[in-house]
Parts: sequence; structure tokens; C-alpha cells
Amino acid sequence: MEKGICIGIIGAGRIGRLHGENIINNVPNSDIRWVCDRYAENLGDWCSSIGVKNHSKDYRDVINDPDVEAVLICSSTNTHARFCIEAAQKGKHIFCEKPVDLDIERIKLVENAVEKAGVKLQVGFNRRYDHNFCRARKLIEEGKIGRPHVIKITSRDPEPPHAEYVKVSGGIFLDMSIHDFDMARFICGSEVKEVYAKGTVLIDEKIGKAGDVDTAAVLLAFENGAIGIIDNSRKAVYGYDQRIEAFGSDGCIEVANDFPNTAVLSNNEAVYRDKPKYFFLERYRQSYIDEIKSFVNCIVNDKKPEVTIKDGLNSLIIGLAAKKSWQEGKCIKI
Amino acid sequence: MEKGICIGIIGAGRIGRLHGENIINNVPNSDIRWVCDRYAENLGDWCSSIGVKNHSKDYRDVINDPDVEAVLICSSTNTHARFCIEAAQKGKHIFCEKPVDLDIERIKLVENAVEKAGVKLQVGFNRRYDHNFCRARKLIEEGKIGRPHVIKITSRDPEPPHAEYVKVSGGIFLDMSIHDFDMARFICGSEVKEVYAKGTVLIDEKIGKAGDVDTAAVLLAFENGAIGIIDNSRKAVYGYDQRIEAFGSDGCIEVANDFPNTAVLSNNEAVYRDKPKYFFLERYRQSYIDEIKSFVNCIVNDKKPEVTIKDGLNSLIIGLAAKKSWQEGKCIKI
Amino acid sequence: MEKGICIGIIGAGRIGRLHGENIINNVPNSDIRWVCDRYAENLGDWCSSIGVKNHSKDYRDVINDPDVEAVLICSSTNTHARFCIEAAQKGKHIFCEKPVDLDIERIKLVENAVEKAGVKLQVGFNRRYDHNFCRARKLIEEGKIGRPHVIKITSRDPEPPHAEYVKVSGGIFLDMSIHDFDMARFICGSEVKEVYAKGTVLIDEKIGKAGDVDTAAVLLAFENGAIGIIDNSRKAVYGYDQRIEAFGSDGCIEVANDFPNTAVLSNNEAVYRDKPKYFFLERYRQSYIDEIKSFVNCIVNDKKPEVTIKDGLNSLIIGLAAKKSWQEGKCIKI
Amino acid sequence: MEKGICIGIIGAGRIGRLHGENIINNVPNSDIRWVCDRYAENLGDWCSSIGVKNHSKDYRDVINDPDVEAVLICSSTNTHARFCIEAAQKGKHIFCEKPVDLDIERIKLVENAVEKAGVKLQVGFNRRYDHNFCRARKLIEEGKIGRPHVIKITSRDPEPPHAEYVKVSGGIFLDMSIHDFDMARFICGSEVKEVYAKGTVLIDEKIGKAGDVDTAAVLLAFENGAIGIIDNSRKAVYGYDQRIEAFGSDGCIEVANDFPNTAVLSNNEAVYRDKPKYFFLERYRQSYIDEIKSFVNCIVNDKKPEVTIKDGLNSLIIGLAAKKSWQEGKCIKI
Repeated sequence: MEKGICIGIIGAGRIGRLHGENIINNVPNSDIRWVCDRYAENLGDWCSSIGVKNHSKDYRDVINDPDVEAVLICSSTNTHARFCIEAAQKGKHIFCEKPVDLDIERIKLVENAVEKAGVKLQVGFNRRYDHNFCRARKLIEEGKIGRPHVIKITSRDPEPPHAEYVKVSGGIFLDMSIHDFDMARFICGSEVKEVYAKGTVLIDEKIGKAGDVDTAAVLLAFENGAIGIIDNSRKAVYGYDQRIEAFGSDGCIEVANDFPNTAVLSNNEAVYRDKPKYFFLERYRQSYIDEIKSFVNCIVNDKKPEVTIKDGLNSLIIGLAAKKSWQEGKCIKI
Repeated sequence: MEKGICIGIIGAGRIGRLHGENIINNVPNSDIRWVCDRYAENLGDWCSSIGVKNHSKDYRDVINDPDVEAVLICSSTNTHARFCIEAAQKGKHIFCEKPVDLDIERIKLVENAVEKAGVKLQVGFNRRYDHNFCRARKLIEEGKIGRPHVIKITSRDPEPPHAEYVKVSGGIFLDMSIHDFDMARFICGSEVKEVYAKGTVLIDEKIGKAGDVDTAAVLLAFENGAIGIIDNSRKAVYGYDQRIEAFGSDGCIEVANDFPNTAVLSNNEAVYRDKPKYFFLERYRQSYIDEIKSFVNCIVNDKKPEVTIKDGLNSLIIGLAAKKSWQEGKCIKI
Repeated sequence: MEKGICIGIIGAGRIGRLHGENIINNVPNSDIRWVCDRYAENLGDWCSSIGVKNHSKDYRDVINDPDVEAVLICSSTNTHARFCIEAAQKGKHIFCEKPVDLDIERIKLVENAVEKAGVKLQVGFNRRYDHNFCRARKLIEEGKIGRPHVIKITSRDPEPPHAEYVKVSGGIFLDMSIHDFDMARFICGSEVKEVYAKGTVLIDEKIGKAGDVDTAAVLLAFENGAIGIIDNSRKAVYGYDQRIEAFGSDGCIEVANDFPNTAVLSNNEAVYRDKPKYFFLERYRQSYIDEIKSFVNCIVNDKKPEVTIKDGLNSLIIGLAAKKSWQEGKCIKI
Repeated sequence: MEKGICIGIIGAGRIGRLHGENIINNVPNSDIRWVCDRYAENLGDWCSSIGVKNHSKDYRDVINDPDVEAVLICSSTNTHARFCIEAAQKGKHIFCEKPVDLDIERIKLVENAVEKAGVKLQVGFNRRYDHNFCRARKLIEEGKIGRPHVIKITSRDPEPPHAEYVKVSGGIFLDMSIHDFDMARFICGSEVKEVYAKGTVLIDEKIGKAGDVDTAAVLLAFENGAIGIIDNSRKAVYGYDQRIEAFGSDGCIEVANDFPNTAVLSNNEAVYRDKPKYFFLERYRQSYIDEIKSFVNCIVNDKKPEVTIKDGLNSLIIGLAAKKSWQEGKCIKI
């Protein structure tokens, strides 16, 4: 029988609950020992609905339980580093939602703590587990496109966030494009050495007033010579748009969106199909399950996580460079 | 909180276990009280792996437990009718795998028993819950194709069964096309009044020697005037091929296969994508979950099941007519 | 320089003029010496607009001109056989529009006359030159699907003809399905030995009153064991629907419709594209050019035409069998 | 009857002959009076093969013939400006292949000459007549995507030119991207105000030694606020890759490549289709016909050409800015 682990969840907002339910329903033999959240209402009800016995407002209850082997850190970004460091000191393996932090130095502190404690840390870049992007990466690893020349990523959300959100999130390059920076590194198999970003406000003036943009394009130069092109929008009326293209010396891979069904209607006006899957909960549903399975598997079989703190760190560095490039109107070397 | 029910499973082969795991993982608040199987090895291990406490070799343990509200009958076809009738007599709601029986009269006995007992019976035509076919049916109900003129179904398996199997299954028209007959009725929204079938042996001579065919085409005439066209093959080298087309006075709907991913590779030879999902466990995975959810929902909310014994009966009648048509080389009226 | 031939056109209706313009614009070094039409108004204007010097009301002017090497017979069906025979007797090569005739015996007379005269005769089944169907046939010849098991053809017109037309055309099986019968033979690479047809009136009652149907399905049994399935409709609201599928032991080829462009629009309601090309003049435009080029090439290089009178004859035989099968409600052996 | 014009062609290389044949075969009632080429061998043979009576080595024979209403200037780029100016002075309408010149001042001299003479000048940006891009532009004009936010163009050739070519062509931004700059302006309906270009050598080192790049990406800022993203490669192994995407406030249009046929093969390994059309002669075949028809139509009906010298000029300005941006590594304002 497949082995499981004993898990504690810190932070029971939308993403923490998603992980909790995925573990209960899809990760055989793993057990959620604790859920803690300082603010969540009705935490006990949710816990009993999924069969979790212990809940608390204090994260220390989780990391102090000697049975807990791993913690999922799903609290707000500003608490990630602290919880990571303390959990590592208690010898817990860590799954940390992205971003680990918005400050490079603090991420390095986490990196040190994790190394010193000899625990594993996986960063929640779930898109790497998406069936489409995984397949693209595998084809590239098999040499199907030869040497990568151009990596293109289109990433558009169905609805913009509140302007208040972008004030604390670090802005589009740090809360949205950062996923694409990680994806670009993953697909290209190389690090970024140069960033040029262009941004503009076309959707919501309040976002502009909050000091951010809602439409952006970023050019990347990779160490292996490839060029990366990312375009982001806070609002695609047709839903979540998540596509990539990897062009190389021997071929090109295109990954299209997922659709809720394959039905196509032809009538006297046009040919129709339903819009793509609406947002990340639909599109990336399976990837959230697979990333947690992968994390558990790393612990059970003592393997290195597939998404490390270095991935979190390097994507943040690109995000900060993109922001700076946009602000200063020039290319930033990393 | 969503209400659930207390369930017993009779028959723990592949499909019984699939339903069991789907209930545990995806049907909130429902509980599997009993699993029984006369022959299954390691039944206890499987039960404990999914948290089911009671198991037995005797189906009477299941239907005699007063807490059990509904039974899933997943045993071999020749036991379905008997188990259905006895379960109905004990006041249990019934989910019965298809076919209910291969004999029309015996199905009518089940129908009577169910009616008399006032319990619900749902037949396991899971494909009606497929996201693609559901969407097609919904568009048709909304009038998007107007009046149906032609319903086409392509249904091909990736591998032929053993010749031994077709001797007991009733043959291709009763073990394979029968799904398509039900689907044709579902999509067209009308009953079949006439059947012409053509069959041939092109894949495996042993199937021919066993008195069956491995490649078939069936023309249906519906009461509403539409024509149905079904083609079946026991072996499509590219995997499971499950498509439909509904053509009418105001439009046409085509439903394509599902694919494991959207990645498309272009190289110096051609443009490629991966083959469709391999077989029914992949293609119809969600439909199995959704049919059980629907069954539970009918019981909890006292609604009529969406797939009734009449659906099982009428599809069997078409299957028997198709077989006769093939054998006699002429059109059979129903 | 590519050699051309000297051509006379008999019949300057829509299809005769199409061929005329195609020759002028696309068949280098061939020359149209004569155009004749008994009834066409403004024949002289059209001739001078394309640079043809001679026109006449009398077909004998064409076949008596010793410079004319080949004639295109594009007049009404009932004159085809007679013009073919006389042209053959004058030693002219013949391109004859389909059907050569609706009577089997008269086609055989043409066949004899052509053989005796040692001239070439090509029948105007232009769809064999369609880029999509050609490609499918080539893949099959290369063995890409292995042995053919099932050939499916969907063929739907955008608008029904007048009921008057079906009275003289021989009905749907002889004026419409006959193209599909030829295509089925072409794609399958085998002759048909058995036909079962089903027809119904769902579009225009006047067609029913004229003794015909407007919606039909035909099952074919081929000599090589494959099954053919054809569905026809006189009216597809979305335009001309011309698709085929060839399924075999080693694979399956699907040929989709052609579209006027590849633009796809996604908005807040759905994903759209334009309807397929409207009718045969758009869809089969290039095939008309290519069939005439092929005809000229056969004459210049003394090769056997790719579409012979046998193709015309055998497709007619299937058409007559289909009509009989529909009328008598039973399978017809050929 | 549609009116035509009397035309002279200056320059009978590949593109001049293409236009000549298109006029003969597809532009009714227009007449090619002269073809001139200083260097072309066998010019007389080609002329007589298409029925053109006069040919010369001297362009003055063309512009001095009082019957000639319009000239097509298809000679080498460095002669364009001079021939345009002299033709204008002789009162001839002008169709000039792109680029008009590589020098902004010389283009302005042409502009002045044309204005002073009151003749029409159309620049040969044929892609504007492509059925796919036209359809996209029309949808945008109809407001289907609302306000444009992001315009993306992928443009890749199947084979790199000789390194010698890029030395005289001005390099990738001036001989290749310039088409995309015009397309971006056309699709977006706005002028470019800022350019950032990134280029690299990944395909052929000789191109690098010749002072150019073979892989490039360009970010554009439009006056209407939209962002443009262009990526170019000199070598796509799968053929000619010409796609655009226009994303806006109310929707998104994607234009895919054209394929030679719609046949799709599924076998036990994958699902295949043929590669896209190989190069511009296949992909843009109809657009070359349609641009000349449009030019003739402008003259016959005294309308303004759809692609003016301003389009040629502004695209050149972007091209020069892109080259400078790549060389200096910074954003260039226009």
C-alpha cells in the first residue's frame, strides 16, 4: 500500500481549504492532523466536514505536534517566511504557497533555515503540474523542438482584482507575471539574464492610480540564448487564457486552453463552441492535486522536490526586475 | 450541509470498486455501509483501504441491513434481476449496472417489483453524464439544432474482448452498441421504431467463430422521423473513439473525443498531437462520479432518476432487434 | 513548354462556362476553338469576353472541326450519351459531365463507342480532385490506415432544389448520393456489392410529393469487406457539408470541411468562427481546374483517364440499387 | 463589363512575373502592354507565353508609352524611388513593391512627386489582402474585440536567406519584420510611437557575422495605448508561420496558419496532419491577386489606394527604429 504522511495546514483560506480537500479525497493514506487559521470563521465546521479532528487559531499547535511530518503554509504572504523558518526549526517538511516572500533577503533566510534543518521545501507553483504544460516540457526534454529559440506565454485573468489588492501584492509583475516567469524558466530549462517590461492601464483606472498597470508585456533573454515573450492582462472577457508556445531549431509546441467540453455547434450564422474553462480553479484543478501528491511522494521516498525555493527566489528576482524595467523604461540585467 | 445516504455495494469487481472509490472521494456525506462479493479476493483489504467497515460474501447481509437505503448492483449480469427484485422487496433504492438483464421478460419483472415497492431504480448508462454528450443534449433541448434529422454515433473500443466474452455477453449489439442505442435515444429525444444492422468480421476471426461480428453499422428510424446511424468497431488502434453528431433543421452539433492534453507539435515532417484518452476509465471518469451523485440526489430529494429501467429495457429491445436484423439481413420493426 | 490541346465545349450553362474560364485562365497552351449551346443567350458576348472566336447553336460544328482534339460535354443529361457517341465516332477525346446517363444500357453504348474509336473518355467526378479527398486517398494507398473497415461520408447541400428538379434528376440517390457512391469507391478502393438505403422527408414536403426524399442514409457493403455509411441532406443551414472518414485496421483519417478563413473570435459569450465554404463552387473550385488539367494531361501524354466511364457506370448502378432499396425497404445485392 | 487598364511592368524577376501572370489570368479586361527588365534572360519567351507583345531592357519604353496607364515597379529596391518619380512625372499610376526605399528622405521625394503629379501610388504590402488577416481586421472594425489592448504577430520563414542578402536588405528588421510592422498598424488601426527590439543569432552564424540577427522580438507601443508584440525567425522547420492575435476589451481574435488540406490521421502513435503551407507563394497566393485587383479598381473608379506611400514610410520608420533599438539596447521613441 502506498505510504502517506501526517500533515498540518497553516492558513485555511481558499487555497488552504482546496489543498485540504484534495488531500482527503485524492492523496491516499495521508492524514491531516491539524488545521490552523487565526481569522477563519467556522473553521471547526469545515474541519469536521472533511474529517479533520484538530483545529486551532495558533500555528504553534501545528508545528509543535511531534506527529506532524509536514506543514502546508497557506497563510498570507507576509507570514510565509516566519512560518517556514519556525517549521523548519521544528524539523517539519514544508509546502509553501507562492510567493515565499516579496523580499529577496527574507527568502534567503528561509533557504538557510531549510538547508540547516535538512527538511524539504516545495514552492506552490502548481502550473508546473498542469497536464498541458507538463506535456510540453516533456516533449522539450525529449529534444522534440531541438534548441529553444523563443518561449511565448499568454496569461490573462477573467477579472481584475480590486485596486486595493495590487497595493499590497506588489503589482502585476509580482502577483501575476511571476507565475509566468517560473513557467518560462521551467519550459525553457534556462535562467533569465535580462528583462524588459512594458505596462499600461487599459482596463481599470483605479489600478493605475494604485501605481500599477493592468496590461503588460515582458521580453526575457535566457542564458541559453532563447528569447522569452510574456503578455498579461487582468481581464479577458472570454475567461482564463493560459497558453504557451515553445519554438526551437527542430520544431514548435503550442499549448492551447482547456475547454469544458468538445461540443461544436454550426448554424446559419457561425460555428460556435463554449468558452475556455473560467478560472484557475477549473483549469488547474488537477494540477493542485498533483503538486500535493508530488510533495508527499518526495517526503515518502526522500526525493528532492520538483519546485524548490530557488525557483521561488529566481522568479521573484525576475518579477522585481520587470517592475523596475517598467518603472525606468529600460532593460534590466540580472 | 448537503445530505447523503447509506449505501451497500453488491459486486466488488472493477466497476463496483470504481463506484465505491468515487462515493468515498466525491459524494459528500454518503456512507458505504456494506460491500459484498461472493468471489473477490482481498475484499477486506480493499474495504479497509477506503474506510468501509463491513464486508461479506452474501448479498443478503447488505439488503437485510435496515440502515442501508440504497444498493449498487455491480455483480455479473445474470444476477442483476434477482438482486434488484430482492432489494426492491426490502425497500432499497437501486442503482443497477447495465444491462439489467438480457431477457425482456425478466426486466419487466424487475420493473414490476420496483414499482410495487415504490423504490427508485437507476440504470448505469453513465455516458449520459459525459460532459460532452450532456452539453450536446442541452443544446438540443434549447432548440439549437431545431428538429433532429440525423443522429450519428461513432463508438470504437481500443481492444477487442476475448472471443469467450462475446459468447456470454450476447455479442456486439448487446454488450457494446447497446450504450449507443441508449445514447441515440437520449440525444434524439425519441424512441426507435425500426432497425437495420450490418455486421462483419474484420479484426478477429475467433469472434466470428464465436458467432459474433467485430465491425458493425446500424441504421435506426426514430418515431420523430429522424434517422440514426451508429458505427462500432472492437478495435481502434488510436484508442477509445466516442463521438456523436446531431444534425437538424437549424444546425448541427459535433462532439469530438477528449484528449489528455492540448499540446501540438509541429516539426519538419508533420503536425502532431497525442492520441485521444485511452479507454472508458479515462474518458468517462467524471461521468461515473456524476451518475452516482445524481442517483444520491434523487433519493435525497425524492426525484425520479434520470436513467430509468425503461431506458434499460428499450435499449435492450433495440439491441435484440439489431442482432436479429444482422442475422436475417433485413429491417426489423419494433 | 507544356503542351496543350484544342478543345470544343458543348453546352455553355453554368458548368460549361466554369470549365471554359478555367481552361483559359489555368490550363496553359490549351485553346478553346468552339463553344456551342442550343439555348444560351448572349453566347457570343461570353465567348468574346474570354477570347473564344467560334460559337454556334449546333454541336456538329464542334465535332466536325478537324482541329478539335477533345470535347467537353456539358449539356443536359439526356443529350450526353448521344453527343459522346457522335464525338467518339469523329475521333474526339471526351470529357463528359456526370451522370453520363441515367440508363445503364445507354452508358454501355457509350462505352462501346469510345472503345471502338480508341478515344479517351473522362467522367466529371470532380470531387476526386479535391485537395482533401485526394490527400485521404493517398494516405490510404500508402497503407496508413491498413485494411479499410469503415468508410463514412457526410454530404449535405445548403439548399434543397426545386421539387420539379427531382422529378427529372432521378431523385436524391441519383443526383446527389451518386457523387458519394463514387467517392466511397474511390476512397475504399473496392467495388460495392450490397446496398441498403433509408430515406425520409423532413425538409420540404413538395419533394415528398414529387416522389423523392430529402434526407437519406445508405449502408454499403464493399467487396473487400469494408462497410460504407453515407448520409445526405438537401439542406444544411450552415452551408455545404462535405466530410469523409476512413477507418481501418491501422488508423483512421478524417477530412473536415474547408473554411473561408482561420479567424476565431472569443468573447464573453462563446468562441466563434465563420461557417464553412458555402457551396460547391467555393469548396470544389480548385478541383474543377485540376480535373481538366488532368484530362488534358492524359491526352497530351497518352495516359488512361483517372475517372473512367466504368466509374460513371458503377456509381449509377449503386444509385439505382439505393433507390430500389429505399422503395422496397430491403437490402439490394449488386 | 468590368473595366480594365493598360499596364506596364518594370522588373520581371519572381515577383514581377507573378504579378504579370496574375493580371493575365485573374484581372479581367486589363492588359499588359510592356514588360521591361534590364537583366532578365529569356524575357521574350516568358512574354509570349503569357501573350504580352512588347518587351524591353529600358524602363523608359514603358513610361513613355502614352497608352500605359499604370506601372508595376518590381525591380530591385534601389531603383524603386527613381522609377516611381519618373513614372509619376509621366502621369502614370504606380504600384510599387515594398520597400519603396530604405531611406526616409527618398521616400518623401517619391511622396512629393506622386502628390504633385496627382497619380495614385499603392505599396505592395500584399498581406493586407490575405483572407485571414482581412477577416480579422474586419471583425475589429466591427467592434468585435472592443478597444485593442494587445496585438501579437508571429512571422517565421521556412529557410534563412544567404548572409549576403542581409548585408544589402538592411537586415531582419527591414526586410522581414517590416511586413509585420505594417500588419500591426493595419490590425491595430493606430500608429506606433515607441519601439523596443531584441535580436539574437541562433540559426546561422554567418548572419551574425554579416551584422544581423536571425531571431528577434519587438515590443511596440501604439498611440491608442495598445501594446504590439512581434516575434520573427528566419527558420521554422515546419514551414511558413504567419499568425496574428488581437486582444481587446471585448474579445480576442486568433488567426491560425493555412494548411494544404484538412486530412487528419490517427494511428497507434499519435494524431497527425500535414504541415502548414510552405511559403509565401502558397500562403499568400490569393492576396497577390487581390492586391492587384484592388489597385486596378482604384484607378478605374478613381479611389484612394488602400495601401499608401504613408504605409510604406511609417513601416520603414518603425523598422529603422527597431534596428536602432536592437543595436543600442534601449527603447526608441518615434
